[in-house]
Amino acid sequence: MTDTMDRADEPTGSTESELHYHVNGDLVPASEATVSVDDRGFRYGDGAFETLRAYGGTLFGWNRHMRRLAETCEALSLDHGLSPDDLHQRIDETLAANNIEDAYVRLSITRGVQPGKLTPQPVDDPTVVVSVTPLPRGGFQGETVWDRPAVLQSVETRRIPDEALPAGAKTHNYLNGILARTELDRAADEALMCDTDGIVAEGATSNLFFVRDETLYTPAADGSVLPGITREFVLELAAETDVPVREGSYELEFVTGADEAFLTNRTWELRPVASLDGTPIGGGPITAQLSGLYDELVERTCYSRTGDWL
Amino acid sequence: MTDTMDRADEPTGSTESELHYHVNGDLVPASEATVSVDDRGFRYGDGAFETLRAYGGTLFGWNRHMRRLAETCEALSLDHGLSPDDLHQRIDETLAANNIEDAYVRLSITRGVQPGKLTPQPVDDPTVVVSVTPLPRGGFQGETVWDRPAVLQSVETRRIPDEALPAGAKTHNYLNGILARTELDRAADEALMCDTDGIVAEGATSNLFFVRDETLYTPAADGSVLPGITREFVLELAAETDVPVREGSYELEFVTGADEAFLTNRTWELRPVASLDGTPIGGGPITAQLSGLYDELVERTCYSRTGDWL
Repeated sequence: MTDTMDRADEPTGSTESELHYHVNGDLVPASEATVSVDDRGFRYGDGAFETLRAYGGTLFGWNRHMRRLAETCEALSLDHGLSPDDLHQRIDETLAANNIEDAYVRLSITRGVQPGKLTPQPVDDPTVVVSVTPLPRGGFQGETVWDRPAVLQSVETRRIPDEALPAGAKTHNYLNGILARTELDRAADEALMCDTDGIVAEGATSNLFFVRDETLYTPAADGSVLPGITREFVLELAAETDVPVREGSYELEFVTGADEAFLTNRTWELRPVASLDGTPIGGGPITAQLSGLYDELVERTCYSRTGDWL
Repeated sequence: MTDTMDRADEPTGSTESELHYHVNGDLVPASEATVSVDDRGFRYGDGAFETLRAYGGTLFGWNRHMRRLAETCEALSLDHGLSPDDLHQRIDETLAANNIEDAYVRLSITRGVQPGKLTPQPVDDPTVVVSVTPLPRGGFQGETVWDRPAVLQSVETRRIPDEALPAGAKTHNYLNGILARTELDRAADEALMCDTDGIVAEGATSNLFFVRDETLYTPAADGSVLPGITREFVLELAAETDVPVREGSYELEFVTGADEAFLTNRTWELRPVASLDGTPIGGGPITAQLSGLYDELVERTCYSRTGDWL
């Protein structure tokens, strides 16, 4: 793995001149993929998005992504009127146009251009953008997209509380995580954010899991935590093992003292945590067990297509 | 005033096909004014902006806008490398190209397109957009841009706390205010937001002032309040009168019981509050006095150019 792929939590752009994107129904070269400066996505970050992985041409966890997208759009009162089948077709067309089957996929929907009011109007002409970047499989039979376990650092920037922006909504308002990342020392890979009560929430682009006394812990998704889809898969996989699982409120010191820790997102899958604020943690047997189960799940549902668990 | 202009807190778009915008150094028809879908402004709302008024071709409060823009960019670690003179020239060119002197002006700066990482990189090629919309003078000798005093409604959405996103930064992450606006009843013009402690903060696009017992009150700008430039002018104008001024923490009930209230922003200038949550408030002698002083200030600094107080 090259350094370029390190921290490639959103790897779009590295080869964009060769790629085609899908913008409002048209496949266009990435360099010509644009939106109006009056698009509400640009003016206000007023848009919903999903980041997906295509493995062997199959969109892993598609139904879950569509459910979360619907939840985001519900939270934003963004009634775009597009069916999941329509969106799936746009992604399929984009993958086909680029002749890739293993990819990072980003799907964005905004209210488009509306008259000059902050108050949103009914959506007549949504902006729909699909961008893809080749991303090798990783996991089971491939290489990971990260080049090493994550160096994790806690930051001062607090996660936005649910009562200010719904924590479950995945939107183009991403400055909170960006500010967290700008706090990082050069050697750190990910920022660990607490909520306004000082309770551990999540990484800038990842959910946190950790192991203490052979029990798997993760911050509950009822506060300032985005319920990631990889997180959801991991919780379901853990339920099939004999590893006890707890979701709750944890302070930083409780995490620092963990026996194992890992971060999850669609791109990283399960990424062990090398250290938190300089204290070594690392992966371990439970992290390895869950990583293996996740890889098997990808294999089963996307490659051999013998599983129906999406 | 037509209904179209009501609530036109950001009036861009109504005649966009006739307008020219300034995008990355070029004047282009608004319909061709675009940014890449990979622009961090679109992907993340990762950008700074200012909304200004041009009165008779003069940008009112220019130095203050440049100071706040610098503060926003400092908060975002967005070192765009452009001088105030450069930015002023782009706005001048845009006004000239559209042959307008009285305008709403929006200036946006983003980090542009960067490799696929959430963590920002040094800014090599910022995106700089200037858009303008004709906006008659209002105030002293003209009509107001609003067609009636504001019907104000308190909402459940809380202002994002400063520790999650710096309250003084004016950024493209504007969903918090949009969600506040989506809560409004049809008859309401502006959403009044409280902070997470239930203390009155500000409107979705405006600052709040109110009068009780001949004292002028406004929420202190040390919490979840954007220190608006019109707010700043009003505070300075009030200091020249014999009206006592207090900045502090106030609960909703204290505002509802006010003798007068008004909202401020660059577009509205001073807009009286007709009612809050159905309780009539209205303007009054102190609101009128301050509105008059504001209009004189605009006259002096922009039209007759006899004042140097910008």
